[in-house]
Amino acid sequence: MGRVDLDRVRDFVRTHCIPREDVAHMHNPLALDRTLAELRPIARELGLYLPQLPVEQGGLGLTWVERAAVLEEAGRSYLGPGAMNCAAPDQPNMISLLRQGTAQQKRDYLEPLAAGRLRSCFAMTEPAPGAGSDPSMLRTTATRADGGWNIDGHKWFITGAVGAAFAIVLARTDAGPTQFIVHTDNPGFRLVRNIRAIDPFAIGGHGEIVFERCFVNDDAVLGEVGQGFAYAQQRLEPARLSHCMRLMGRAQRALELAQQYVNERRSFGDRLADLQQVQAMVADCHIDLHASRLMTLDCAARMDAGQSVKTESAMAKVFVSEALYRVADRAAQMMGALGMSEDAPVALILRELRPFRIYDGASELHRATLGRRFLKLSQGDSR
Amino acid sequence: MGRVDLDRVRDFVRTHCIPREDVAHMHNPLALDRTLAELRPIARELGLYLPQLPVEQGGLGLTWVERAAVLEEAGRSYLGPGAMNCAAPDQPNMISLLRQGTAQQKRDYLEPLAAGRLRSCFAMTEPAPGAGSDPSMLRTTATRADGGWNIDGHKWFITGAVGAAFAIVLARTDAGPTQFIVHTDNPGFRLVRNIRAIDPFAIGGHGEIVFERCFVNDDAVLGEVGQGFAYAQQRLEPARLSHCMRLMGRAQRALELAQQYVNERRSFGDRLADLQQVQAMVADCHIDLHASRLMTLDCAARMDAGQSVKTESAMAKVFVSEALYRVADRAAQMMGALGMSEDAPVALILRELRPFRIYDGASELHRATLGRRFLKLSQGDSR
Amino acid sequence: MGRVDLDRVRDFVRTHCIPREDVAHMHNPLALDRTLAELRPIARELGLYLPQLPVEQGGLGLTWVERAAVLEEAGRSYLGPGAMNCAAPDQPNMISLLRQGTAQQKRDYLEPLAAGRLRSCFAMTEPAPGAGSDPSMLRTTATRADGGWNIDGHKWFITGAVGAAFAIVLARTDAGPTQFIVHTDNPGFRLVRNIRAIDPFAIGGHGEIVFERCFVNDDAVLGEVGQGFAYAQQRLEPARLSHCMRLMGRAQRALELAQQYVNERRSFGDRLADLQQVQAMVADCHIDLHASRLMTLDCAARMDAGQSVKTESAMAKVFVSEALYRVADRAAQMMGALGMSEDAPVALILRELRPFRIYDGASELHRATLGRRFLKLSQGDSR
Amino acid sequence: MGRVDLDRVRDFVRTHCIPREDVAHMHNPLALDRTLAELRPIARELGLYLPQLPVEQGGLGLTWVERAAVLEEAGRSYLGPGAMNCAAPDQPNMISLLRQGTAQQKRDYLEPLAAGRLRSCFAMTEPAPGAGSDPSMLRTTATRADGGWNIDGHKWFITGAVGAAFAIVLARTDAGPTQFIVHTDNPGFRLVRNIRAIDPFAIGGHGEIVFERCFVNDDAVLGEVGQGFAYAQQRLEPARLSHCMRLMGRAQRALELAQQYVNERRSFGDRLADLQQVQAMVADCHIDLHASRLMTLDCAARMDAGQSVKTESAMAKVFVSEALYRVADRAAQMMGALGMSEDAPVALILRELRPFRIYDGASELHRATLGRRFLKLSQGDSR
Repeated sequence: MGRVDLDRVRDFVRTHCIPREDVAHMHNPLALDRTLAELRPIARELGLYLPQLPVEQGGLGLTWVERAAVLEEAGRSYLGPGAMNCAAPDQPNMISLLRQGTAQQKRDYLEPLAAGRLRSCFAMTEPAPGAGSDPSMLRTTATRADGGWNIDGHKWFITGAVGAAFAIVLARTDAGPTQFIVHTDNPGFRLVRNIRAIDPFAIGGHGEIVFERCFVNDDAVLGEVGQGFAYAQQRLEPARLSHCMRLMGRAQRALELAQQYVNERRSFGDRLADLQQVQAMVADCHIDLHASRLMTLDCAARMDAGQSVKTESAMAKVFVSEALYRVADRAAQMMGALGMSEDAPVALILRELRPFRIYDGASELHRATLGRRFLKLSQGDSR
Repeated sequence: MGRVDLDRVRDFVRTHCIPREDVAHMHNPLALDRTLAELRPIARELGLYLPQLPVEQGGLGLTWVERAAVLEEAGRSYLGPGAMNCAAPDQPNMISLLRQGTAQQKRDYLEPLAAGRLRSCFAMTEPAPGAGSDPSMLRTTATRADGGWNIDGHKWFITGAVGAAFAIVLARTDAGPTQFIVHTDNPGFRLVRNIRAIDPFAIGGHGEIVFERCFVNDDAVLGEVGQGFAYAQQRLEPARLSHCMRLMGRAQRALELAQQYVNERRSFGDRLADLQQVQAMVADCHIDLHASRLMTLDCAARMDAGQSVKTESAMAKVFVSEALYRVADRAAQMMGALGMSEDAPVALILRELRPFRIYDGASELHRATLGRRFLKLSQGDSR
Repeated sequence: MGRVDLDRVRDFVRTHCIPREDVAHMHNPLALDRTLAELRPIARELGLYLPQLPVEQGGLGLTWVERAAVLEEAGRSYLGPGAMNCAAPDQPNMISLLRQGTAQQKRDYLEPLAAGRLRSCFAMTEPAPGAGSDPSMLRTTATRADGGWNIDGHKWFITGAVGAAFAIVLARTDAGPTQFIVHTDNPGFRLVRNIRAIDPFAIGGHGEIVFERCFVNDDAVLGEVGQGFAYAQQRLEPARLSHCMRLMGRAQRALELAQQYVNERRSFGDRLADLQQVQAMVADCHIDLHASRLMTLDCAARMDAGQSVKTESAMAKVFVSEALYRVADRAAQMMGALGMSEDAPVALILRELRPFRIYDGASELHRATLGRRFLKLSQGDSR
Repeated sequence: MGRVDLDRVRDFVRTHCIPREDVAHMHNPLALDRTLAELRPIARELGLYLPQLPVEQGGLGLTWVERAAVLEEAGRSYLGPGAMNCAAPDQPNMISLLRQGTAQQKRDYLEPLAAGRLRSCFAMTEPAPGAGSDPSMLRTTATRADGGWNIDGHKWFITGAVGAAFAIVLARTDAGPTQFIVHTDNPGFRLVRNIRAIDPFAIGGHGEIVFERCFVNDDAVLGEVGQGFAYAQQRLEPARLSHCMRLMGRAQRALELAQQYVNERRSFGDRLADLQQVQAMVADCHIDLHASRLMTLDCAARMDAGQSVKTESAMAKVFVSEALYRVADRAAQMMGALGMSEDAPVALILRELRPFRIYDGASELHRATLGRRFLKLSQGDSR
């Protein structure tokens, strides 16, 4: 598989990441950063660093199909993708900078991100009545000021915000929604707090941010003024597929832990593994993972071929996010009380997987959009 | 796609098969045979006949991957696969004869089957306490008689039996289970009745058969004495995947009919297509079909590469049989009262799809077997 | 339980109804009528006739709670409710006549219905673009003619129409929707055909009817002109609860047949009853039936207390229709191939239960209505 | 409803408990105890204290049916049941002491528990290979020593252990399993740690405990020697029903929060409450809660009538635990990102509800037991 030996990734995760997993990382982005800082040099030395960037940017230059397997292996531990610098939100931010950034912006932001010297976030979501699923409700504004812009607004659930050096911010201008690069030490940028969410190991947490007369120069604009939504759409498809890949590894690990448990634990005279209900749960987990992998790989192959995956990636997002959650839920159930504790990471994996049915577009939103699209396509269909 | 233009198959099914669909075919295998006899010359002329056999045997020589799409298109109508002579049970019987038949048996049985001059069936299942899911419970016996064998036993749910010219019969001998080719005009062969099952359009119905001192010569043995189970296993994987392919077409058609209906029908001021619950049902149908196709194609590609699909085909059988049934159930639901009637074929497609969750191994059986296999594999797994 | 000994109902159904079940009744309302005609005198003699009518009308005068158990027992066979004259659509028609009928109408229509001398139907549903789920789309009209009305329109899926002596017809007048009693031998009434639906044993089938200048006198109006919808709403709640009760019996019987089967059938060395997946399916069936009974009984008790069950009956309709279908589906699955055949009635029960998720308001419609009602109620909720 | 005005309970929870909910209580049993200590005097003053005990013991003497509604109201906040001293494990421990305790034990343990002067726990579950679901695997032993017993063993997931004054311990003796009352300051009793589980607000946490030559006098035996299992079984049915009641309140509250959210939040031009998928989710939540209440009340009425609820309480446990979890999961989903955060308590309620599908017998265990019981009952069933 590609230019990366998967066994080496697996080995790295088992030997270096999993032993460093620690409940002290929960809702503690800075502690998590310290551990990632220990891991990155090891990943780099092993040739596992930056799988998603081209070789010219210091990456491994993998195709999407190759990445699928690498990200799954990395994702077995919540520390893996961060260690290999292929975690959200830095990964899609690097892709945005690569596509829309000026030469100067690449030097200033892409290079240090790729090198792992700093972290970033992507500030789009707003509390009600602002932009949630519907970007047209965007309320953060950027207004012209001499030689630049003043940004005002309120953002939350900004993954990665705690400890980030800069944010890519979506704000409304007279010419339409626009993306700006904002340093977090800008006096107009205020990180209100880290929102404790059900998934406790997000790199940089989930920040609530207030922008108050936050002045940025013209060169803070990323890409063209007024194109902010279009860019956001472009980043979404690969971003959600990368999530599918990474979280697949987490679900696979939960399943393996459960299998190990039921192979050993006895009850009422039987090994749990000998009980048909347990066997059926194991089978359903494998079926869910198998279908999830095929749907993800199908998108990866299409992206490598330069095809649109608008529909396929939305179908994959819905199916995979729900299938992986079912896998983790069954794994926890098979392990009984132990599956409920933080001793086994399965309950924590369950918590990490839950938001994926919401983040990057809730299942209900995707279903409605997909349904409308298919129904429209089928009009006039005379077969 | 392969050496067959899919549009031509689609066209054949739309123009020739669907207009000939008729509730008078229900539980009436001979009426169904008459319609198929009209359709086969057309299919042959259009170059659509026998997609699954090698060119030497008069087939189209398609790979499994090519077949997947062709069988799906054929399967849009219950008449399609029979018309193209790629329907069960003749299709797997031809493959068995090709693999295990002597030169003489190929001339006597494979050739006329391929030519469509006669039909056949595969007689394995027995009423309780005989062989159902568990072939080791086989009670039909074949005992040595001079120059041949006497077969005694009771079989039922033998798809294709009504109107069949011969049966491949699984019977127990001293040397183990063995397959025999038995002419249905053998005086020891008695077709008791056609069992009316929920799926009303099975070619040759579902027969109940009694064998009473049914004498056959030694050359009636198919393959080696004692290898009957092994052969039966071999035929099962491709047989169930072919079912997946054909029935995918049926489910796809049900969905299209439902889409057409909800695009037009109004209720409480809205087109049904504008209601989110309907949109979500449509999306789920497409997701189910997409995943089903990918799982089936994955097996097809493996079979083309000569790999075992023991595990993958069982996972596909469980998922696809359940997913297609969900698709047909939602399609019927979307169409309301009309979806319950024989006016729209959706209710009939629902009935045709229901047994696939049982035939070729019930979902529960596959889940238990898969679960045990995965749990065994995971033992000693130290990742 | 009430004034009817349930064991006597059970006995009647076992001894007289089930042995008379016959696939020759499928889509053959007149054959079904002949069998019911044999059964009714027996039911009357046993004191089981007309449980739902008051004693003054010749009924047993049971409360709703008492009826719940009696209708469930009757419903074990598709012949039971008809034999006891508590089947749809005559049962709700009798209740309508009792409530809205004049003394003359009671003598002319209610009495012979109650006596079982004739049958009736309720003609509301229309093909697209007419009234389906949404009664406001009603297109059948009744226009003033001297001394009466001319009815014109097209109805379908009119359960009970074949062999009915009269229909209660919903038609639009200048003063609003109105119910009319129309004799089926009226020259303006034409039964086009019996629509074959997935449920094969509906008494009087599902008719398609055309009204062409169908003249009726003023005394054909049932209740007040313009109140047709209000009356239709009134009949719906008890009608759907009666369906829940009767079909509960059918699902219960399917489960018992499956239990008997798995207690005897062996596979791979075990009785099927010893397999955990089978045990879990049995448990889920009982849980579904238990919850269904409690929801139905809760409505019955409220109706006996004169309370509205607008919300509770809609919740019960959704839950019970889906739960009973799951029960029948699992029962069929447990019985394998036999569960797919008409030998065991389970596949037929599955077919009978499927439309209940649609008739009397599709699950999706009830969910949307219930959801809106609860959401409205919760507004301003400050708890 | 009973001798307790439900509005007063609701009021108490809204006014006193919910404002004191605090994420600082997570995995911090002692902080939680301090808050409960503030609340109990208020509950007592309001006449809401100890609903489950007879009046003679200082309780409110409610029947089970009365308790159902009171416990549901209390359970709207995780602080409610503890404040009213009707929380697990003290509640079932008081019932055990009431039933099996000597007069002296009642004075020493029941009275202070009822007064809220101390807390207790019930120590049954052991780590593998000890007693989990299967009590026959009990490995903790009590061996005769002069004038008493020495207890040795290892327990975990002992809810309530942190801060408890005594434990009721199940240990194996020569005469069979026996319950002992053990002071937690006994030198042979060692609380190893608080196991952090997915439900963060358990009173007294989930303790891991080691018993090492833990000597107790003869009067530490609760009830009769050898009857420990029988007593444990007796406490289980009411205990799990009380859980159903309390957790119903939590699920109900999650739903109300979600309803409030979707009534206000807009997306793509609609209020979320106007979207059919949301309406359907709301409807399903109410249906789940309605069925859950009816199943719980049915058991309560049977218990009040002195009937066995062996089967009904197991059916209720399976259904209610799964239904409530579905309610909380849908509520979280409806609230989007906010539903994932600790800002809204919904994500926390989701975490609190997850273990109920495992604690008190996993769903799979109950399903297998119920299935076997029903299948046995149906043997020889000739209806």
